[in-house]
Amino acid sequence: MKNTFGSSVALTIFGESHGAMIGGILDGLAAGIPVDEDFIASQMSLRKSVGEISTPRKEADDVRIVSGVFNGRTTGTPITFIIENQDTRSRDYGELAYKARPGHADFTAQMKYHGFQDFRGGGHFSGRITAGIVAAGAVAISALNAKGIKIGTHILACGGIRDRFFGNISEDIDKLTGLPFAVLDDSCKDRMTEVILAAKQDGDSVGGILETAVCGFPAGVGEPWFDTLEGVLSHALFSIPAVKGVEFGEGFGVAELRGSQNNDSFRNEDGRAVTATNNCGGILGGISDGMPIVFRCAVKPTPSIYKEQQTIDMNTGEDTTLQIQGRHDPAIVHRARVVADSVTALVLCDQLALRYGTDWLAPNNE
Amino acid sequence: MKNTFGSSVALTIFGESHGAMIGGILDGLAAGIPVDEDFIASQMSLRKSVGEISTPRKEADDVRIVSGVFNGRTTGTPITFIIENQDTRSRDYGELAYKARPGHADFTAQMKYHGFQDFRGGGHFSGRITAGIVAAGAVAISALNAKGIKIGTHILACGGIRDRFFGNISEDIDKLTGLPFAVLDDSCKDRMTEVILAAKQDGDSVGGILETAVCGFPAGVGEPWFDTLEGVLSHALFSIPAVKGVEFGEGFGVAELRGSQNNDSFRNEDGRAVTATNNCGGILGGISDGMPIVFRCAVKPTPSIYKEQQTIDMNTGEDTTLQIQGRHDPAIVHRARVVADSVTALVLCDQLALRYGTDWLAPNNE
Amino acid sequence: MKNTFGSSVALTIFGESHGAMIGGILDGLAAGIPVDEDFIASQMSLRKSVGEISTPRKEADDVRIVSGVFNGRTTGTPITFIIENQDTRSRDYGELAYKARPGHADFTAQMKYHGFQDFRGGGHFSGRITAGIVAAGAVAISALNAKGIKIGTHILACGGIRDRFFGNISEDIDKLTGLPFAVLDDSCKDRMTEVILAAKQDGDSVGGILETAVCGFPAGVGEPWFDTLEGVLSHALFSIPAVKGVEFGEGFGVAELRGSQNNDSFRNEDGRAVTATNNCGGILGGISDGMPIVFRCAVKPTPSIYKEQQTIDMNTGEDTTLQIQGRHDPAIVHRARVVADSVTALVLCDQLALRYGTDWLAPNNE
Amino acid sequence: MKNTFGSSVALTIFGESHGAMIGGILDGLAAGIPVDEDFIASQMSLRKSVGEISTPRKEADDVRIVSGVFNGRTTGTPITFIIENQDTRSRDYGELAYKARPGHADFTAQMKYHGFQDFRGGGHFSGRITAGIVAAGAVAISALNAKGIKIGTHILACGGIRDRFFGNISEDIDKLTGLPFAVLDDSCKDRMTEVILAAKQDGDSVGGILETAVCGFPAGVGEPWFDTLEGVLSHALFSIPAVKGVEFGEGFGVAELRGSQNNDSFRNEDGRAVTATNNCGGILGGISDGMPIVFRCAVKPTPSIYKEQQTIDMNTGEDTTLQIQGRHDPAIVHRARVVADSVTALVLCDQLALRYGTDWLAPNNE
Repeated sequence: MKNTFGSSVALTIFGESHGAMIGGILDGLAAGIPVDEDFIASQMSLRKSVGEISTPRKEADDVRIVSGVFNGRTTGTPITFIIENQDTRSRDYGELAYKARPGHADFTAQMKYHGFQDFRGGGHFSGRITAGIVAAGAVAISALNAKGIKIGTHILACGGIRDRFFGNISEDIDKLTGLPFAVLDDSCKDRMTEVILAAKQDGDSVGGILETAVCGFPAGVGEPWFDTLEGVLSHALFSIPAVKGVEFGEGFGVAELRGSQNNDSFRNEDGRAVTATNNCGGILGGISDGMPIVFRCAVKPTPSIYKEQQTIDMNTGEDTTLQIQGRHDPAIVHRARVVADSVTALVLCDQLALRYGTDWLAPNNE
Repeated sequence: MKNTFGSSVALTIFGESHGAMIGGILDGLAAGIPVDEDFIASQMSLRKSVGEISTPRKEADDVRIVSGVFNGRTTGTPITFIIENQDTRSRDYGELAYKARPGHADFTAQMKYHGFQDFRGGGHFSGRITAGIVAAGAVAISALNAKGIKIGTHILACGGIRDRFFGNISEDIDKLTGLPFAVLDDSCKDRMTEVILAAKQDGDSVGGILETAVCGFPAGVGEPWFDTLEGVLSHALFSIPAVKGVEFGEGFGVAELRGSQNNDSFRNEDGRAVTATNNCGGILGGISDGMPIVFRCAVKPTPSIYKEQQTIDMNTGEDTTLQIQGRHDPAIVHRARVVADSVTALVLCDQLALRYGTDWLAPNNE
Repeated sequence: MKNTFGSSVALTIFGESHGAMIGGILDGLAAGIPVDEDFIASQMSLRKSVGEISTPRKEADDVRIVSGVFNGRTTGTPITFIIENQDTRSRDYGELAYKARPGHADFTAQMKYHGFQDFRGGGHFSGRITAGIVAAGAVAISALNAKGIKIGTHILACGGIRDRFFGNISEDIDKLTGLPFAVLDDSCKDRMTEVILAAKQDGDSVGGILETAVCGFPAGVGEPWFDTLEGVLSHALFSIPAVKGVEFGEGFGVAELRGSQNNDSFRNEDGRAVTATNNCGGILGGISDGMPIVFRCAVKPTPSIYKEQQTIDMNTGEDTTLQIQGRHDPAIVHRARVVADSVTALVLCDQLALRYGTDWLAPNNE
Repeated sequence: MKNTFGSSVALTIFGESHGAMIGGILDGLAAGIPVDEDFIASQMSLRKSVGEISTPRKEADDVRIVSGVFNGRTTGTPITFIIENQDTRSRDYGELAYKARPGHADFTAQMKYHGFQDFRGGGHFSGRITAGIVAAGAVAISALNAKGIKIGTHILACGGIRDRFFGNISEDIDKLTGLPFAVLDDSCKDRMTEVILAAKQDGDSVGGILETAVCGFPAGVGEPWFDTLEGVLSHALFSIPAVKGVEFGEGFGVAELRGSQNNDSFRNEDGRAVTATNNCGGILGGISDGMPIVFRCAVKPTPSIYKEQQTIDMNTGEDTTLQIQGRHDPAIVHRARVVADSVTALVLCDQLALRYGTDWLAPNNE
């Protein structure tokens, strides 16, 4: 399968940046889950471009659900989300049809689709396709919330400015919920905005790091090999455009630690096993241990920059130069954050359904 | 599926640390590929414990192929590898049967398998199960090599000592091939050995980072969403016990870069598109670009340490302390290296078969 | 996965009989395949109700492709088909909301979806959902035709009237192409129509048998175990609503034969191996032998009949009676025929892509 | 995946008729299920050749479990079954190495594996490979039995002699349990044996039909499209060598019925919905209705016959004749019966785990 992820709960996405519609089909979610269209809209708004630090392309991103919801609740059958593309500038794509933009998928698309790909605005590779993930993810997040499972992502780093790490995870997630620019330390917002605008000024862009936490997730979910919780989550997270690294708990920091520092000791807390530290990010042997699941994603700087770049002409194979025009984001990390929440929610719904059955997420099966 | 990975070329693994046998079934590999049992044995020896810096448990690790090979070549049907466990100390496991070792999967196994898991030596969670991956991986590596695709992994970091990064990748891979302690800068071997022995002296352990490179891999393989090459590789790589982070190309370093620094510009080199830098690690939009695929895995320090640790009694739920005895590795990163090569080879064989068909890896289909 | 079928080429379907839209996403088809909207429309028309022998519900069934096609050709990325429901009578469903119609999925839907299913017109279980299969199947059929692979299905039996078996398969398929009521012996059309109308007169319905043949399919496709060509085809064919049996070649007739009668002897014909008979239906050991693939599907009589039936009230569990009103088909076999062609084409495209790679169906890779 | 079936509970099989070992890995079964090696042995004995009506090849078929069972119970991790091949006659295969036996997979194997397949005794295509299915199936059957789900298969037809259909299914299954030659009407045994021996006398073979019933299976399991219970069962059942047709309930008989005859009316029986008839075979809309699941498999006559047959030389492509020697079964239907039970049990365990979670089959989760 190519544009489908999940086994018991699965999402299939479709669309191109400048095609007629984008969207997705979410299949396998339990019947009876309330679908809150306002919440979907509010999640979609977190993905939208905001002010100066994003692309001037404006899309209403109105999500229409055309199947799988009846009387405001999931039916248990495929939920289809469609979103019409509106602000697609009808213009001559000119050299973008054959010059490979560095950092973009133009060249690899050419090698895979032999020139038949829809190149307009990145086509199917566009970050715009994440709108279908966010719409589906909103339903998944609601379902998880109803079971006491919360997910939150903040911008840990952007253009060299770092936010604080998660502290009291439950409170931090509450703080992040609905926040347009998701940082834990409020002072980061202005400082990050500043570096984004400075990059924009230079016709350039900046990258960052997202940190996600999940609390309330039960222990005993995941597999020891291959379908480890880390493996399944990372598999999906690398679909967030621009993500080039995923690490759990202490992540790459483990290289500097000794076992005696890295091991999380257990203790009994009110009849439940907890760990003193959470260097493992809530996952041991591929299986959840009941502590918060914590991971980070590295997000590369937007490849669309306004500086002249060396590249090749894909028709002739010859060297050439390219000067990108058009509407682009000087940073994507703040918009990718709701995509991280959404991907996480979808993967966890699938894992829970596989472990506890397809009805577990239904409202009356708590 | 749980202990199976891959779609067209798939590996299923089985076994427990102290069970009768461990091994795996490799299915879907093209017919006619020569199977070199000496190469399998040499790959297995790279996984074995070596000298002072590894566990004193010694296993012959003789791999027996009981199906799927006929007249020295693959038949196209499942190849089954079995390895008998020999050096399993028949003793009283005592408190290890019910005390959760910090950093290990004992507690999560209990939550998943409700006490029926084979707890001896970590059971199915043991790093020993990677022997089946290495045996199957050896066949996959041979098949790839015959097509001009080479894979190499080195210990980029161990206990604070860092090797140099890959330079001339093809030459570096040749240098690493068959090297028992895989570093690019020879001087690292002694320095890393020293920190491992120092940790051992303290009853402690150290972590590290593995860096893997693949060269000769064709452009145009992978998918734009979900089954991105990064996603599929990371999914499998997180099965290597102790891996807590995976990053491609510049990885987490992208957070510090601007787009103009991170973008890899294209140029024509002898009629083929190449990039000036390889910050993307050979993957753009989830699809290979024909440049070397480069990634790094963070490996946590071995959780089996000899210091007293706080934990819980899983039968009673009460707090207790634990003093691990037995035979353990003060570092695992050098032994995990051949597992990284093997996992990579298996994933790439699957991707190539999906892309170009099940006969592509056969000897006469170059 | 639930509403998705296929591995390399996969279809996901969605929708409910009286929802806003129905349709599907076809993913994984090679880039560059011409998409002929007229052919799609003509295939859709074969699925539509015709004259007296079908439901009076009339749907335009205009298929809109909203992704995956660019400049008239497949892009290689997901192709999304949407069809708006129009002729949905806005009325009180009354007792159909809680009385289980015998032969329908009302009761089993209740057991699976706990009352949250969309019950209107059968909801997601409606035969109407096959429209998405036929739209996607039309693209798959075109792709196969371009490679010299042809598929045809005829009504072998309907209400006791039997058509002749396939004879010269290539010619017979040509004859069937585009035929609104697909029989090989022209005289069957009137006789079958008669029995259908007689059943309608009685407020009753009739069943039948479809026979499908594929010619031009290469030898060597399929797997010896589990993913046998028979297994994969039957898996998908049982999704055609009302299909209760699938048999290949001589099928259930093999029970009456001796090996010497059933074995298909080989001979050389113009340098190619052919068999004298085709009792195996073109499949031996789960793998195609290059002869026509032939199979039959048993189609049960439409369960919606106008006679009073015994059933239960799903709210109270009590016995009750039911008198179905509304618009229904006295036979479905003639409309199911194009669905059989479509399902077959989709499965075979997937098998070919798995065997020969994702580009095999592309126009320039013959 | 090729030699793997199942999603949550999955079986992977391996081996060749004359290789070192055959067997399988059963993954995903709940932890804590008692494994009765005597029951496995008794199931294996039902698959063995018996007396005059089977091949004289005798195999001990001792099943050794080398992983996944600890203290007599499943651990929840992969259960590996190995069976050594013993009675493999070391001889010159002569013309069988290159002459395609009619009705066998020799030719299709050649087209798929290009001559590298292990041709000895049918290699991986041999019915002998079902031993791994039966071993794994025995564990699955035990697990289902403990939950009140029973499975039984009888020889409905063999060489023209027909057994009675299932009547009181629960009692009939009890009667069949452990019966070496599984017929419901005792008088059939001798009559069927007679026709088998008559065919043997003629150097020929006979086919038959197996009928399987499952009782105690809960309502609400299966999917409306693609993963219908019929689709998933048939997918697996066509892996039983020689099966060429699968039908559920009334099966192909539906073609002769009217809706009013075929519909199964519901009624309340002790607070539970039951149907008056079971023409749907316990499955409506792809989902179980709580009534017995009933289906039939057509089994072709053994293709190994001793009469001279026309065929081709696969090396030269030329016409030739073939006179099969060696040890063969004049009928396979009686030996295939336990394979049908096993396949059914494995599929149903998977379906139950997908629907109700991976712990549902565990002993303490009733």
